[in-house]
Amino acid sequence: MKNIAVIGYGVVGGGITTVIEENCAKIRAAVGDDVCVKYILDLRDFPDSPYADRVVHTIDPILADDSVELVCETMGGSHPAFEYSVACMKAGKSVVTSNKEVVATFGVELLECARENGVMYMFEASVGGGIPVIRGINTALAGDRISSVNGILNGTTNYILTKMKTENRTFDDVLAEAQVLGYAERDPSADIDGIDAKRKIMILTALASGKLVSDTDVFTETLRNVTVEDIRAAEKWGGAVKLIAGSVIADDGIQAHVCPMFVPWSCSLAHITDVYNGISITSPVTGDVMFYGRGAGRLPTAGAVVADVCAVLSGAAKAERIPVFEKAEGSVKLFDEIGFRCYIRANSGRSELCEALAAYCEGTEVLSDEAGVVEVITGKLTKPETDKIRAQFAGIESVIRVLD
Amino acid sequence: MKNIAVIGYGVVGGGITTVIEENCAKIRAAVGDDVCVKYILDLRDFPDSPYADRVVHTIDPILADDSVELVCETMGGSHPAFEYSVACMKAGKSVVTSNKEVVATFGVELLECARENGVMYMFEASVGGGIPVIRGINTALAGDRISSVNGILNGTTNYILTKMKTENRTFDDVLAEAQVLGYAERDPSADIDGIDAKRKIMILTALASGKLVSDTDVFTETLRNVTVEDIRAAEKWGGAVKLIAGSVIADDGIQAHVCPMFVPWSCSLAHITDVYNGISITSPVTGDVMFYGRGAGRLPTAGAVVADVCAVLSGAAKAERIPVFEKAEGSVKLFDEIGFRCYIRANSGRSELCEALAAYCEGTEVLSDEAGVVEVITGKLTKPETDKIRAQFAGIESVIRVLD
Repeated sequence: MKNIAVIGYGVVGGGITTVIEENCAKIRAAVGDDVCVKYILDLRDFPDSPYADRVVHTIDPILADDSVELVCETMGGSHPAFEYSVACMKAGKSVVTSNKEVVATFGVELLECARENGVMYMFEASVGGGIPVIRGINTALAGDRISSVNGILNGTTNYILTKMKTENRTFDDVLAEAQVLGYAERDPSADIDGIDAKRKIMILTALASGKLVSDTDVFTETLRNVTVEDIRAAEKWGGAVKLIAGSVIADDGIQAHVCPMFVPWSCSLAHITDVYNGISITSPVTGDVMFYGRGAGRLPTAGAVVADVCAVLSGAAKAERIPVFEKAEGSVKLFDEIGFRCYIRANSGRSELCEALAAYCEGTEVLSDEAGVVEVITGKLTKPETDKIRAQFAGIESVIRVLD
Repeated sequence: MKNIAVIGYGVVGGGITTVIEENCAKIRAAVGDDVCVKYILDLRDFPDSPYADRVVHTIDPILADDSVELVCETMGGSHPAFEYSVACMKAGKSVVTSNKEVVATFGVELLECARENGVMYMFEASVGGGIPVIRGINTALAGDRISSVNGILNGTTNYILTKMKTENRTFDDVLAEAQVLGYAERDPSADIDGIDAKRKIMILTALASGKLVSDTDVFTETLRNVTVEDIRAAEKWGGAVKLIAGSVIADDGIQAHVCPMFVPWSCSLAHITDVYNGISITSPVTGDVMFYGRGAGRLPTAGAVVADVCAVLSGAAKAERIPVFEKAEGSVKLFDEIGFRCYIRANSGRSELCEALAAYCEGTEVLSDEAGVVEVITGKLTKPETDKIRAQFAGIESVIRVLD
């Protein structure tokens, strides 16, 4: 019998006990023993749960019980998740988490703590729900140098974009409905302002490069300003608007960003609809590999936690190299230095806009020019350049970068 | 220094030395040591290669050299790949292969041999080139019960279908061009008659279920009869024609098949074009997960071999549960028992066809009825039923199953 504890008995934590019950035979085969949830730490009681007698309200009994080999941290937030995880690892227990915030913020320290204490710190469930992308980067691509990662990492925003497109509705309208249906939070900022996706791309970039960039180094643009006109323009151009979390890993630095982008149909990410997530990884040897699936939800996320639990308890994870994250300070390439082709829509004359753009880039193509509205795909422009163009040119309605 | 040998120095074998050279720093970090290709077994000499002095023409010096920890088998074919692999494992060497034929044919015996000799037998590169699908099933989904696998597992046929669609050309025409360009073999049967895809779905199904079905249990239908009319009909219906290798894993048996299918746009596999591969895996906990990438090619396949080499030499793979394959005898569900909705095109009257179909299934929908040609999507029909309908109804031009 292998004993584990679950700290934070919310949506994901509750899913863990369900998954362990439902798949007990398969888990026993993987681990070589039964897995028992011995403690559940939560501030609440769960008198109607079959696990009511396992509930504790402080971390102390878990830390004190040497029979607990592993702790699943599904609390969310940085604190006290960070402190509890460190305490568990110092007490010789491996930690498996679904908490992207704590990994993105304290990944360097948490992985270092695991190494120092000879235990594992696993976080497959922190990105992409049940999609095994962390494991993919960490094992299958272990011998390859990853040059870029691009993903649709937030299901809520992808659902909103899908509805806007298929039902021709405004952002605000779809968001309000998603809130009523429970797909979006009452305060939707973490999703629609790209904060959730930012944490996930920080984690993926750190795995791919060894360098964890800081929160403030990731350029993050909200989805709030995307309109149905933008989506129709992307269709006319040959693609879709998606909230892309991307990073470039090059010899001269690492750069990560989250922003709405025009994604061409030739890129698989353009075809990902509804709440699905997809992560495309490019490396010189393997080429493009994409992982796709339901990026969130109780059971898929809990399933990813349980997969990590199986890996640790079977011994498979012990032999796996614990990834090393270093702070990326000094290796960061600024977003402002990177040029992107851009979609620009303006209330102006065609020649007027094209002339203004010609001062900054070559190769601008006109997408349409009707009824006083001109739409173009520009050559490569940096953010300072698009800022200047917006400032000097009053008629600009929209600027959206292109994923090339 | 960790010594390895490569047996079979063709496209993939040659790629292995390239990948090891190009990514030596990353590989050293993963393995904790340098990796050296000490022997290359091939019938040919390679006097101009920097590895000319490593070439041997029999397996004996490799078997006799205890410093060789691992052998990469990239010979292809069942014999002598099987015998050489067994001899290497009996000599205490792990084996990593890209050879789908030998895994599909002798997977039960090869994995048993690995367990008996305390070594690893790894085959990530046998399916999907650089796409880490084997590892995904074997680790990330280790605690979940997979209920179905559906994949586009052959790049050549997907390339042919893509060209037929986009350039409105016949199967024979595109195949002939693909042969000239080297994308298809002079004898294209392994690709276009589904033999290659069959071996791959046998391997994936065995990983997902523990049961290796035999070659003759996999219903396999050629792509040769698919026409541009079929592809246009799929578009009209709302999807694409794809050569799907699928399997269903249920309590009452396992069933695997390869056949052209109508795939709806709502399924990610429909969007996979050109030589790309995709594998969609369904399980109750994780939902649908898809893996996507370049399914073949020298460097992606060699990269997958090298990823397995890193896993074995770093010790990561030793702790991984070696999958157990058992012969599926007795657990096979016959293809003939499974009903699929079907696209049927016939030179006949609408009511005539619909009446004939009504004897076998409910819910047939008419897709079009023009100029004496009627197209329908039927209710669920088994293969014996479609055979009977074809026999009794002379005007049928095409029958293609639907992926639901």
